Amino acid sequence: MTMNRQWILRQRPKALLADGDLELVQTAVPELKDGQALAQVRYLSIDPTMRVWMAVDSYLPAVQIGEVMRAAGFAEIVESKAKEYKKGDKVVGLTGLQEYTIVSPGDKLALQKVPSIPFLSETKFLGVLGMTGLTAFFGMEIGAPKKGETLVVSAAAGATGSIAGQIGKIHGCRVVGIAGSDDKCKWLTEELGFDAAVNYKSADWKEKLAAATPQGIDIDFENVGGEIMQEVLNRMNLFGRVVLCGLISGYTKDDPGMASFALALVKRLRVQGFIVLDFAERFMEAATKLGQWKMFGKIKDRETIVEGFEKAPQAINMLFTGANTGKTIVKV
Amino acid sequence: MTMNRQWILRQRPKALLADGDLELVQTAVPELKDGQALAQVRYLSIDPTMRVWMAVDSYLPAVQIGEVMRAAGFAEIVESKAKEYKKGDKVVGLTGLQEYTIVSPGDKLALQKVPSIPFLSETKFLGVLGMTGLTAFFGMEIGAPKKGETLVVSAAAGATGSIAGQIGKIHGCRVVGIAGSDDKCKWLTEELGFDAAVNYKSADWKEKLAAATPQGIDIDFENVGGEIMQEVLNRMNLFGRVVLCGLISGYTKDDPGMASFALALVKRLRVQGFIVLDFAERFMEAATKLGQWKMFGKIKDRETIVEGFEKAPQAINMLFTGANTGKTIVKV
Repeated sequence: MTMNRQWILRQRPKALLADGDLELVQTAVPELKDGQALAQVRYLSIDPTMRVWMAVDSYLPAVQIGEVMRAAGFAEIVESKAKEYKKGDKVVGLTGLQEYTIVSPGDKLALQKVPSIPFLSETKFLGVLGMTGLTAFFGMEIGAPKKGETLVVSAAAGATGSIAGQIGKIHGCRVVGIAGSDDKCKWLTEELGFDAAVNYKSADWKEKLAAATPQGIDIDFENVGGEIMQEVLNRMNLFGRVVLCGLISGYTKDDPGMASFALALVKRLRVQGFIVLDFAERFMEAATKLGQWKMFGKIKDRETIVEGFEKAPQAINMLFTGANTGKTIVKV
Repeated sequence: MTMNRQWILRQRPKALLADGDLELVQTAVPELKDGQALAQVRYLSIDPTMRVWMAVDSYLPAVQIGEVMRAAGFAEIVESKAKEYKKGDKVVGLTGLQEYTIVSPGDKLALQKVPSIPFLSETKFLGVLGMTGLTAFFGMEIGAPKKGETLVVSAAAGATGSIAGQIGKIHGCRVVGIAGSDDKCKWLTEELGFDAAVNYKSADWKEKLAAATPQGIDIDFENVGGEIMQEVLNRMNLFGRVVLCGLISGYTKDDPGMASFALALVKRLRVQGFIVLDFAERFMEAATKLGQWKMFGKIKDRETIVEGFEKAPQAINMLFTGANTGKTIVKV
């Protein structure tokens, strides 16, 4: 009998995840029925949106108390009574925060098979070629960058922001990142080719942002919200675009990260919210493009790998304390 | 010698206009130079945006302390040394809050001649066929209404909102207005053909808004901001459009009417700020369309006429206390 360790949502977190919000339990994997397959999870994708799923209904319903916590993962089929999957298939999708998942053919969010690509780590299917890379890709499409424009990316050293900024460079933009440490800023400018990076924890970060954006800002790839967003809006040019990708400054607070719409009015900004799942039909096209860019060195990525399934809650908190760089992944 | 009464900005208002913010002065109209014309102002357009002009740089620079207060008006050429104007011409444009204005040929915002139209009051060139009507027209174009969708208009009994809602009806939308009195709500539903109207001063207005929008809201024609906007955002449907036209709840406060961008993200809203002046090249096209709708009874309008140039400051305050309905105009 195969045992499955699962993180169960026991209570909705108040700020950062605290002990008791998630509980680690062990259950037996049930016997497979015809049409089902069993996948063993190798890597779990750790994303800010998980904190939203724990708290409220959003673009997906909140995870219910007592349910396995929702998560994306990379898994391998270890047993199959389904014609769609055979043993050894590699799959990605919403595996849940657990070691094993059963997939049934009718599942709306069934696991998608991914190819084995030489010299490409499997974790890439969660990061640069996965949801966060795809989010950067479609978000930048919404931003409609033009050569010579200035793009600012907040949470720029994160999994999505770091790719979004590099896509901006591919389009010929001046790209400025906002991140939470000098090391992250150095990574952005020295390795990823950002034109400038601003550490928002430095006292004079607003002056530095101004100095880094002498022509104002045409595109805000917004991952943070709140005070950082407000300052970026202050520097937006007329007819700029705000790509509303995330508002993580508010995810661990009661305060949802308020900001003024007044500048959006006066500056005739177009603010567009989006969720990557809306682009599901185009994932293959986008992942192919990202794969090419990755192969030809046009985009680089970094991963923060946390070893050990039992460390998943700490890994989630790292996203909000700034302890991660690039894509955060739990190796099961 | 012709004397000109002018309202001069003496200090920036803190909340509603107070005594001493504007000062009424009298000066002699200077001798006309070649190429100039003198226009006598008949009607002044009283608009919420004036309160913004008094306070801060926005889409136009703030009026400077000591300058004549900026205002749009309807005027008649009474003397001309310019080939563009002859005595008796009727003109509209930024006349300033004064009784006479001199127009020079190089003026960027020169007065535009308007035709005499039988049975059409001259005040219509400031309202339904003027800036506020044009604002409603282009704002609704941004809203991209589709038949059967639900449109909510805040400040719906105002000059712009009342026209925007009726344009929504022309496009086959369910139209719900938000206004500040039962009388205004009655006007919207009984005379203008709105499907429902909600008095936001009633204790249960949120429940009433919910009842009036059983299919949610697809388009928010936003004139108010703050708490009212937040509640409308709460009821927006996925992929809805927010036409950011005005945020008057914040114009008389230090608090700029904060709201959360979180719903814009989760619901994939498109929030578009706009200023009618950006559409200047299409004013004639739009005014013609509005004129047709007006002539055929597709849109109705109401005016609040304040008699007496000296009452202009009180007329401005009426916009923020809700004492006006439809277009507010000062008859000079």
